[in-house]
Amino acid sequence: MNSGQLQRQDIRIWVANRFYYQAAIPIKDAAIMSNCPMREVRRLWLHRIMDHDGAKDDEGGIGAWLRLGEVCGLSRRELLDHRHVLPGVRFAVDAYVNFARTRPWPEAVASSLTELFAPDLMAKRLEAFKRYYPWVDASGLDYFGRRLVQAPRDSGEALKLTLDYCDTRERQLAATHALQFKCDLLWAILDAIHARCLALPHPRRRGELSGQAVKSSDSNPLSTSKGGSPT
Amino acid sequence: MNSGQLQRQDIRIWVANRFYYQAAIPIKDAAIMSNCPMREVRRLWLHRIMDHDGAKDDEGGIGAWLRLGEVCGLSRRELLDHRHVLPGVRFAVDAYVNFARTRPWPEAVASSLTELFAPDLMAKRLEAFKRYYPWVDASGLDYFGRRLVQAPRDSGEALKLTLDYCDTRERQLAATHALQFKCDLLWAILDAIHARCLALPHPRRRGELSGQAVKSSDSNPLSTSKGGSPT
Repeated sequence: MNSGQLQRQDIRIWVANRFYYQAAIPIKDAAIMSNCPMREVRRLWLHRIMDHDGAKDDEGGIGAWLRLGEVCGLSRRELLDHRHVLPGVRFAVDAYVNFARTRPWPEAVASSLTELFAPDLMAKRLEAFKRYYPWVDASGLDYFGRRLVQAPRDSGEALKLTLDYCDTRERQLAATHALQFKCDLLWAILDAIHARCLALPHPRRRGELSGQAVKSSDSNPLSTSKGGSPT
Repeated sequence: MNSGQLQRQDIRIWVANRFYYQAAIPIKDAAIMSNCPMREVRRLWLHRIMDHDGAKDDEGGIGAWLRLGEVCGLSRRELLDHRHVLPGVRFAVDAYVNFARTRPWPEAVASSLTELFAPDLMAKRLEAFKRYYPWVDASGLDYFGRRLVQAPRDSGEALKLTLDYCDTRERQLAATHALQFKCDLLWAILDAIHARCLALPHPRRRGELSGQAVKSSDSNPLSTSKGGSPT
């Protein structure tokens, strides 16, 4: 993505699948709050739900992602019904929600610390979209811009909670395991998307891959006429 | 309570035990949100968490209940560590949280509909405290006053959601069962508190009960020197 190698269909697959993750974030955060008996921690965590859900219309991160989808050629409907979501992405995201529901809240908080690296990623991503994917109208990139501001605040809060509440060796190990788990699931999401993109027809890749994985036999609209044109 | 028959120790037992219920409300509401994939429903439900937790200090319903405890002679510490909570109350409240965690969100929403009857109850309770329990400083009755305003709004929202989403016979039955379950648990809380109060020494009750249940052999401070004085 950051070096401009994606086709339009690849971007769409990423956007549609990543939306399943976005839609699960407030559910995950409510699960963390539901496991936390401490009023002061719940107060600190609450804004994350508001940040993603918004108060009305398309305010909030989910709304911003729906706009990203629209400028990429994905209707709200096909995003909201998750028709393009790959099984591997679904399992990984559901595992995240399940983790937040079933593990002690400090571990679930620690699992969010991948956000420590979000600002750099978001800045690079914004740059990449503007440079390599100009067909994605900049009006749809609002999500990345707002995360530039939100992620440092969010990860700072989560890091402080983790350092404060993971105050034994055992809890510190649990926190690092939680973060590893989160990295695993983010990788699993990307791997599933990557495998899907490789399986689609692509002029350049066809040569590179010596003819493998060029069939597109399903009826997924992302793999048919809409996709395939070079960026 | 509403006919002025409670001793100070009875009021304290009720306040300390009911606080366990109050403290569980945001946890229960976060569980409902965590089970709800619909952004518009989560948006509607979110203010309940804010209403109870407040943004800071003792804002919110939990803070108001802590003040009620203080004017009744219960320290914040003994409320917050739940030392006075009876097993029957704990099981009933935990069952409520567990219900919200494990049942479909429309059923958990329906279980909140006991609030339809809250405004009348709160008005009577406010009246009763002012009339029969003047030793409870009115500055501590803020919780009941705010519920006079919040409960009609909350129950109206929950009723609309229930009518909208419980749109089959099966779901309607599930909703009524949820409400019955909630009534059962509220009764179980009151029964446990009632039984505890009857087991404490009480000048009038001692005669009425022909000497039964007058022993107070445990170390619960609610049953010792602080209690026992007539209202």
